[in-house]
Amino acid sequence: MSRIGVLGTGMVGETLSTKLVEIGHDVVMGARSAGNEKAIAWSERFPERAGHGSFAEAAAHGELVVNATGGVVSLEALRAAGAENLAGKTLLDVANPLDFSGGFPPRLSVVNDDSLGEQIQRAFPEAHVVKALNTMNCLVMVDPTRVPGDHDVLMAGEDDSAKREVADLLESFGWPPAAIRDLGGIGAARGLEAYLPLWLSLMGSLGTGDFNIHVAR
Amino acid sequence: MSRIGVLGTGMVGETLSTKLVEIGHDVVMGARSAGNEKAIAWSERFPERAGHGSFAEAAAHGELVVNATGGVVSLEALRAAGAENLAGKTLLDVANPLDFSGGFPPRLSVVNDDSLGEQIQRAFPEAHVVKALNTMNCLVMVDPTRVPGDHDVLMAGEDDSAKREVADLLESFGWPPAAIRDLGGIGAARGLEAYLPLWLSLMGSLGTGDFNIHVAR
Repeated sequence: MSRIGVLGTGMVGETLSTKLVEIGHDVVMGARSAGNEKAIAWSERFPERAGHGSFAEAAAHGELVVNATGGVVSLEALRAAGAENLAGKTLLDVANPLDFSGGFPPRLSVVNDDSLGEQIQRAFPEAHVVKALNTMNCLVMVDPTRVPGDHDVLMAGEDDSAKREVADLLESFGWPPAAIRDLGGIGAARGLEAYLPLWLSLMGSLGTGDFNIHVAR
Repeated sequence: MSRIGVLGTGMVGETLSTKLVEIGHDVVMGARSAGNEKAIAWSERFPERAGHGSFAEAAAHGELVVNATGGVVSLEALRAAGAENLAGKTLLDVANPLDFSGGFPPRLSVVNDDSLGEQIQRAFPEAHVVKALNTMNCLVMVDPTRVPGDHDVLMAGEDDSAKREVADLLESFGWPPAAIRDLGGIGAARGLEAYLPLWLSLMGSLGTGDFNIHVAR
């Protein structure tokens, strides 16, 4: 059992927070405002192991912190969380830098020479950023059995022990060890994030988010 | 048996041309210059069914035309091929808009609001552009058994009969029908091309190009 801070109250944040509580962790869901109604309502479902608070309170609570905010506001949310509340901790970044302001399909707001994962690592050099889980629907993130057969979760980050910690967490979600693929340093976040337009096309053509990719070799 | 024009003399063009000749097609490999040494040397390996020529000669020869040129020069190569030599034909576009001029990893020269596949379709409205095969190493393109297990080839294009023609060609390469996935219109080329940074990361971490993705669902 660990203390985990989840930043973000959207479907991704709520799905991850709920799974984390269900498997025994103490979770604080963080929002821009400590009085966020969605965070309060969520925490009331699990009075023994769930709390809510500001981004800073959630990050301070966590031994591990999850960035589940929208990618275009993640840096701002993490600045609100505070570098001092992230230092020395594993920061699992599941966000995608997708800008929906121009409608669908969204644009990648960072691409080619940089990635959100790298931006976060540069902005918070004392955090151990691990990019993972951003390549699938949040329901699949926490329950890989929703998709039959072999399929994979890809991760990237600079710190091996942080990646080990994330891999352990993924295994506790039900991911088989062989399905957890380490792509190397945080620079690989460029590929993980640039995959999203293909994910959106696949979702559109399949008519469901219950799918994922497997790297066959 | 069909007449096929393959534009491009690089590894992708040569691998596709050789496979096409081996399975019985009459192939002309096209290059910027009709005297291209690689195209001449290749065509001499298959004197009965292979030829070489300019981009225009290769395109004129083909009932189906393959764009296997480098993505950053594809539009120029296709203009040299000539709209009149592409009109009414299926144009299988396997190119990726990767700019290596700044070193490795390359940048996507088109991303987000457009794709090379769409640019080609707009520039040659009478051609039936089908984007396919760009998501894998060329050795896997023509021999899917190099990668064990289920894995997929994704395609996009506006014209259903052109996609049917490409699917038939893919089946003749050994692709099982269930592995051939139609993502819809040519707009889906955005995702197919934006996948390349992830493909490059996977190749780097796996240490081989003998892999491919399977869409599990």
